[in-house]
Amino acid sequence: MAIRTYEEYIASLKKMRPNIYKFDELIEDVTTHPATKSTVEGHGQIYKAALDDEQKDVFTTVSHLTGEPVSRYLSVIQEPQDMYANSRLKRTMFQKTGTCTGGRCVGWTAMNAMFCATWDIDKEFGTDYHQRLLAWLKDAQARDITISGALTDPKGDRTKKPSEQDDPDMYLRVVEKRDDGLVVRGAKVMICGVAASNEIFILPGTSYGEGDENYAVSFVIPRDAEGLTIVETRHPSDTRDGEEGFDIPVKDGGITQAYLLFEDVFIPNERVFMAGETKFALKAVQYFISTYRAAIGGCVAGQGDVKIGAAILTARANGLNSKVFRDKIVQMNINNETTFGMGIAAAAMGRKHPSGAWVSDMLLSNVNKVHVATLPYETSRLAQDIAGGIAETGCMPSYKDFKSTKYGHLIEKYMKARSKAETRARAARLVEWATIGAGVPGCMHGGGSPDGAKLVINAMGQLEKKVEMARRLAGIEEEMPDPGKK
Amino acid sequence: MAIRTYEEYIASLKKMRPNIYKFDELIEDVTTHPATKSTVEGHGQIYKAALDDEQKDVFTTVSHLTGEPVSRYLSVIQEPQDMYANSRLKRTMFQKTGTCTGGRCVGWTAMNAMFCATWDIDKEFGTDYHQRLLAWLKDAQARDITISGALTDPKGDRTKKPSEQDDPDMYLRVVEKRDDGLVVRGAKVMICGVAASNEIFILPGTSYGEGDENYAVSFVIPRDAEGLTIVETRHPSDTRDGEEGFDIPVKDGGITQAYLLFEDVFIPNERVFMAGETKFALKAVQYFISTYRAAIGGCVAGQGDVKIGAAILTARANGLNSKVFRDKIVQMNINNETTFGMGIAAAAMGRKHPSGAWVSDMLLSNVNKVHVATLPYETSRLAQDIAGGIAETGCMPSYKDFKSTKYGHLIEKYMKARSKAETRARAARLVEWATIGAGVPGCMHGGGSPDGAKLVINAMGQLEKKVEMARRLAGIEEEMPDPGKK
Amino acid sequence: MAIRTYEEYIASLKKMRPNIYKFDELIEDVTTHPATKSTVEGHGQIYKAALDDEQKDVFTTVSHLTGEPVSRYLSVIQEPQDMYANSRLKRTMFQKTGTCTGGRCVGWTAMNAMFCATWDIDKEFGTDYHQRLLAWLKDAQARDITISGALTDPKGDRTKKPSEQDDPDMYLRVVEKRDDGLVVRGAKVMICGVAASNEIFILPGTSYGEGDENYAVSFVIPRDAEGLTIVETRHPSDTRDGEEGFDIPVKDGGITQAYLLFEDVFIPNERVFMAGETKFALKAVQYFISTYRAAIGGCVAGQGDVKIGAAILTARANGLNSKVFRDKIVQMNINNETTFGMGIAAAAMGRKHPSGAWVSDMLLSNVNKVHVATLPYETSRLAQDIAGGIAETGCMPSYKDFKSTKYGHLIEKYMKARSKAETRARAARLVEWATIGAGVPGCMHGGGSPDGAKLVINAMGQLEKKVEMARRLAGIEEEMPDPGKK
Amino acid sequence: MAIRTYEEYIASLKKMRPNIYKFDELIEDVTTHPATKSTVEGHGQIYKAALDDEQKDVFTTVSHLTGEPVSRYLSVIQEPQDMYANSRLKRTMFQKTGTCTGGRCVGWTAMNAMFCATWDIDKEFGTDYHQRLLAWLKDAQARDITISGALTDPKGDRTKKPSEQDDPDMYLRVVEKRDDGLVVRGAKVMICGVAASNEIFILPGTSYGEGDENYAVSFVIPRDAEGLTIVETRHPSDTRDGEEGFDIPVKDGGITQAYLLFEDVFIPNERVFMAGETKFALKAVQYFISTYRAAIGGCVAGQGDVKIGAAILTARANGLNSKVFRDKIVQMNINNETTFGMGIAAAAMGRKHPSGAWVSDMLLSNVNKVHVATLPYETSRLAQDIAGGIAETGCMPSYKDFKSTKYGHLIEKYMKARSKAETRARAARLVEWATIGAGVPGCMHGGGSPDGAKLVINAMGQLEKKVEMARRLAGIEEEMPDPGKK
Repeated sequence: MAIRTYEEYIASLKKMRPNIYKFDELIEDVTTHPATKSTVEGHGQIYKAALDDEQKDVFTTVSHLTGEPVSRYLSVIQEPQDMYANSRLKRTMFQKTGTCTGGRCVGWTAMNAMFCATWDIDKEFGTDYHQRLLAWLKDAQARDITISGALTDPKGDRTKKPSEQDDPDMYLRVVEKRDDGLVVRGAKVMICGVAASNEIFILPGTSYGEGDENYAVSFVIPRDAEGLTIVETRHPSDTRDGEEGFDIPVKDGGITQAYLLFEDVFIPNERVFMAGETKFALKAVQYFISTYRAAIGGCVAGQGDVKIGAAILTARANGLNSKVFRDKIVQMNINNETTFGMGIAAAAMGRKHPSGAWVSDMLLSNVNKVHVATLPYETSRLAQDIAGGIAETGCMPSYKDFKSTKYGHLIEKYMKARSKAETRARAARLVEWATIGAGVPGCMHGGGSPDGAKLVINAMGQLEKKVEMARRLAGIEEEMPDPGKK
Repeated sequence: MAIRTYEEYIASLKKMRPNIYKFDELIEDVTTHPATKSTVEGHGQIYKAALDDEQKDVFTTVSHLTGEPVSRYLSVIQEPQDMYANSRLKRTMFQKTGTCTGGRCVGWTAMNAMFCATWDIDKEFGTDYHQRLLAWLKDAQARDITISGALTDPKGDRTKKPSEQDDPDMYLRVVEKRDDGLVVRGAKVMICGVAASNEIFILPGTSYGEGDENYAVSFVIPRDAEGLTIVETRHPSDTRDGEEGFDIPVKDGGITQAYLLFEDVFIPNERVFMAGETKFALKAVQYFISTYRAAIGGCVAGQGDVKIGAAILTARANGLNSKVFRDKIVQMNINNETTFGMGIAAAAMGRKHPSGAWVSDMLLSNVNKVHVATLPYETSRLAQDIAGGIAETGCMPSYKDFKSTKYGHLIEKYMKARSKAETRARAARLVEWATIGAGVPGCMHGGGSPDGAKLVINAMGQLEKKVEMARRLAGIEEEMPDPGKK
Repeated sequence: MAIRTYEEYIASLKKMRPNIYKFDELIEDVTTHPATKSTVEGHGQIYKAALDDEQKDVFTTVSHLTGEPVSRYLSVIQEPQDMYANSRLKRTMFQKTGTCTGGRCVGWTAMNAMFCATWDIDKEFGTDYHQRLLAWLKDAQARDITISGALTDPKGDRTKKPSEQDDPDMYLRVVEKRDDGLVVRGAKVMICGVAASNEIFILPGTSYGEGDENYAVSFVIPRDAEGLTIVETRHPSDTRDGEEGFDIPVKDGGITQAYLLFEDVFIPNERVFMAGETKFALKAVQYFISTYRAAIGGCVAGQGDVKIGAAILTARANGLNSKVFRDKIVQMNINNETTFGMGIAAAAMGRKHPSGAWVSDMLLSNVNKVHVATLPYETSRLAQDIAGGIAETGCMPSYKDFKSTKYGHLIEKYMKARSKAETRARAARLVEWATIGAGVPGCMHGGGSPDGAKLVINAMGQLEKKVEMARRLAGIEEEMPDPGKK
Repeated sequence: MAIRTYEEYIASLKKMRPNIYKFDELIEDVTTHPATKSTVEGHGQIYKAALDDEQKDVFTTVSHLTGEPVSRYLSVIQEPQDMYANSRLKRTMFQKTGTCTGGRCVGWTAMNAMFCATWDIDKEFGTDYHQRLLAWLKDAQARDITISGALTDPKGDRTKKPSEQDDPDMYLRVVEKRDDGLVVRGAKVMICGVAASNEIFILPGTSYGEGDENYAVSFVIPRDAEGLTIVETRHPSDTRDGEEGFDIPVKDGGITQAYLLFEDVFIPNERVFMAGETKFALKAVQYFISTYRAAIGGCVAGQGDVKIGAAILTARANGLNSKVFRDKIVQMNINNETTFGMGIAAAAMGRKHPSGAWVSDMLLSNVNKVHVATLPYETSRLAQDIAGGIAETGCMPSYKDFKSTKYGHLIEKYMKARSKAETRARAARLVEWATIGAGVPGCMHGGGSPDGAKLVINAMGQLEKKVEMARRLAGIEEEMPDPGKK
């Protein structure tokens, strides 16, 4: 059966080996522990939606490997329409959970990137990575598992290449090649939604040169693989996750970002998709970012939708009509539709890879990355502007104070406005959560920095062609090469 | 023969009745008069490109009416790909001419809008407008004519409906209905590229209500129709058009915007596509803006490309390396790709009209309209920033001063930098022309104002749906309708 | 002795009646409790600086009442130079503490506002409020106390006037007038730095009309007055305050914002500065905002200075040279100097009140308020941009995980870059703290909303004068009054 | 008599030797020639205002040399209040003329810069430049002359120092030193208001090093000095200056920018203020920009005031109420007050030079320069947005077409809205003139480029101090110097 139920998904997480920690404490059950429960619930909604008649078209598609219905998150992106569905899916999930369900989309995009890269590598080197990937994918579809993805290495001193670092483990690397597989050591950091996933798809972290062969590695592993230790990072106001009440009002959505620590982890050959082909590491990353930086516009659009709703909800609780804020709402909508739309445009302007996958346009997806790194900040500011001082930094007494037997009645009395006190607090807490609290996703640097995107834009900007256009228009006959720098 | 040559095009303009004026002077030949020659040359490049093997795929397509190759500007937009081609065509034309060749795209878009609207009207009222349109279009394709388009009425006092105006002619209107056609009176204002066109396609100007029936009118006429007088408007630095030299460095591109004065012009029935169906006037305008406000992003992107090139050309002439300006160039590229991309997105998210035409997404195209009304201003500012004081307001001696026998040698001496004086002047004049001169198109209000676009965005923003999302997420049970305004 | 030592200040807080709660728990000693200790330490630095030879000129001045040295925070602002010192003081304190020491500046500004307002009231009504204020101030200077200030009422349903509210307590009000004083009931909300203060200065919250007399009230009370209960609100990541380690790296600075609940509190006459004079309530608020919205530019400039430093510190820890970020640093500097400078300008363009106080220019201070509500958001975004993914949402393992005996060594290993792991974490945590953590002050709505500021700007914008300028320039003879709205 | 009448001023211009050209034509009388008449009228208003009782306080002050009333433009700036008056004067002049009356403020600022620089040079080298300057100034005050100022050299290849240029005349230089004076050759370019001036004050153009001694030169000359040829540059739509009617609606304001060509001009010693002291050339320029970049905020604020008025005037002519545009007007006001206010702040934070002159703060004045280079562009865009398509590029028939006997009545008919046609045209033409026409001043690069200002901001940003603040706050003990660049 290719589409699991929510209950099957939860059960699959429960039976995994506990290897995730936070605050130096082992998380025995990710589905109930406060540090991970919300993100699991967020991801769990995907399984519910996939079996819901009204939503299943968005959440599922047909496997081109088997012709069976499968989760979109396990499908190969083959047409612009598949990318549009990607953007819509991301937007929908942010609307449903208020934040990032990153335990699926990075893995999905990583798999698609390696779908192309393995095809390229095989063509060049006669390897069989692509078949390995297909075999694993078919099985993953059949199991309907949740797969997170990992890209970022610790990097150590940024001025040095991987093989030049004082500590050779600063980039994830192969320390032993066996007949039946590889042994890897190192770390991947700031990885989303691992706690909600069954497996983790590993990409090479950047471009590699000569001498860096051991760093050019890609594979997929169970989340609870032997030798893998996972430490969840902090995020703003994260200890509220464990509190009773409504100081975090969202129960079925939450974000986790982990450090994955590989202490000589064994990867069997059938799960290895790159091992030393440095020439294709950058290619794999480019396939990844072309798609990822397109669709991420759907994410921040979806959260922007929630920010609009939450801000107006707070204004209404205060007794204010939404028309007062029309210009601000329009600007927030413009921001949302711009990141969403630019992702659609990158998809539409993409190209078919010989493997059959659809690769989005790299220039447009990197332009979108810059918007994703800026526009949501304005949207957050406008949400706080509309919602007022109680939302700006969540400047309200705690749930415990609401329930105080000594003065709780006074908090109720003075927090009440047009709506009752709890409603007003929940609305303002949602704004806080989404703009300066635990719901803020790390989208500025997630999938790479905006400065990196600007380098791509610069490289793809065809400056000389534009200079030539201008020269012809201006009727200039002199050649106009760039002068040397002073 | 469905694709005319440049020479045939020029000849067709020469033989029309002179009815265009500027500075109270009749323009006898639009192909040679300084006020119109540049725009004719700009439009003429379309005919050259359509017959050029390397460019013909961009400029021509296959008529769905005849299966023959036709100019894209005379084709029905049926697929997203046709819209992508529309955006690319507009961008290409701005790159070729440095400015607007508006004598084709407005007419094209107007025809497509009425392609849908006539289908709707016929369905509702049993009229035969759609067949009339097809018959005319088939003929227009066969003649390969240039068709401009007209939307904007004078409007008089903006606080009054058309039928309430003191002067009933403030919106173009039917003053007589004959068996064989209509007689119309009034004006259309700020109409692009009329001087370069063979015919003019007229749209209703806005939404109309009861009592406004005579204003709900659409038709197509020869540019030199009896009773039609055309007055070209001024644009910045327009008298330089008639000067010798390089103070306007661009020779094969230029913009004209005209006032069309209808003094009881007769329109035969076969050229009438709406006559009194007020219910469909707004619809027609919406079809128009959905497409127009999408593709216009290509226009400003194309001019942005030229601004980048011109600014860097000037910097090089000054001896400055382009890397110094990398961040600014990246920002200009982001602006260009954003308006281009949002147009693509609107196309991709569009829908098939029952008539077979493709209608772009109205929300995304209106978001793009707002970007088109703002981002090019930043691009212009950055171009001036890079190019320096001589470009900012074109602060250089005139061509005549360059050629002065008294001191021309001193101008040459002191204008020379890394490039020779004339090159430097031409480059800076191109920046001036494109950012504060005769090349600046009226894109902020062309096809409607950004405030109008914001009203559409507000109406399509689904605010209540977003409030409900937030309410669910925040766990609020209270209903949250909008309070009354204070 | 007019300048207390740090030790005397701490002792004065320790001996006050405990009446502050957080999380439904009574704070027995504000100087040691984790919820309030940091803000007390922040305020304590003022006392140290006032006795430090190098800093005392900034922190102290001469009392115009006694000619004795006094804390600037207890002085009457009489010259532009006093306002410049105000801006510098605020900037310095943000630089020292990284955040708001709001327990002094609001009280200071409130006292200065009432210095003017009492003079006005006395002149109109023959009352003796001004003398009361002087007497109290002289004593406060002698005691060198810390005085916070309170402005914002709960407001209830924003569409209703104070006296129209269902619950009459939605604005702080007089419930009884006795011969020896007033009894007040209600609340003041979102009040900064109360926990670090000895007394609290109360302003009327807004403009009042007929029937609202009981709401037009101003006075000063001991923080531990009988009948006053104080509840500290939450702020982002506030529970980290109680944690060991460096997840909040700042120890000598912190912000608190409280709800003050007045249950029939008695105010003796000599501490009452307004009681029913509704005509002067708005005036008092205007005096307050003119000064407050000027000097607050110093606050956000000071925090901006810290954001620059913290971002570059993180970049250096990563191994990145600061020149890479030059354009971003310049933009951050521009933002800082703009809010600082506009405050200086408002001061310079101010005017002498007949009471002898200096009142800053209201137009410029409100323009500054809008900058204060927007520019720091850009500065924060740029700080996160420079500092990278670990700073953006503080995406790093907790201090407890650093110290884990199981895997702490791996966290150290992989967090190390050019600097050692702890240094890198402290730097990134400082960026997190200042941009999305406990250090974020509520400056957007603090002292009123940016929308309120825009209303003032609109009212003071002299539109008709500008229309007349334009009419004269354009040579228009027709009168041009505003048309009626459609 | 120290204050001349308007008539005396005009007479003084008429009797000068004609040495100004435009379009290769000698301008016989600058007071009547269309190319220069408007700017002369603009400058002439200064003389009228100086003798007007209501305005004289703004326009005149008391000479510190003689105690007599003198034009502010001939005074030494000695206090912050003198700088505030400078900002107000500039704002007032833009409000009066709609554009730049640059023939006074650059000369004024240049004189003040050399007032300081000559004092410094004399102190170092024992020269008597300062006394020469005082003597000349006293005489200039007595004659009440108009003095323009010149800074910018042609610069040739920007990658080379003055003495390294292929042509040694690329920077104005001394070619001969005589006992009684200097002979200079070269050019100064883009010089404002020369046509309206009696004398021209010359500054060194930049910093100079060893070997550049002949370029470090400052002096003052009559505008019609022997050997000096002046060529006026073009500006947008400049040929309209010579047209009848209202296509340029402004008659008493206009801008000119000239190239000054020095063909071995003799400067008598008593008018030379620097000759070879390279060490002080940069200093002189810094004195200049500190003051100039502060007060220029008043200029763009004044034009911004006119843009607001002109935009609303057009809206009213269209029948639209100004409240519709409230948010846009508020933003325009914010832009105006920001550049005005930052200039005030730079003045307030300035310092007394030992010579007795007041030097504004260089950091704040350079921050203001960046605002001056950006905010007016937004203000212009908003003016066009409010005023609509007829204003955006001035898309209206010409005055000649309005007067056409053939169709002028139709232009009147269709241009009429709520106001009559001519009023509407004048209002829209004023917006065009101020935002994309002949009224646009060259403020982005006037007095130096925004990139130059950013270099100053970077240099004065005290980065290491801010890093130290952050390091102390974060509790970091490791030293944190900048890493080497990759």
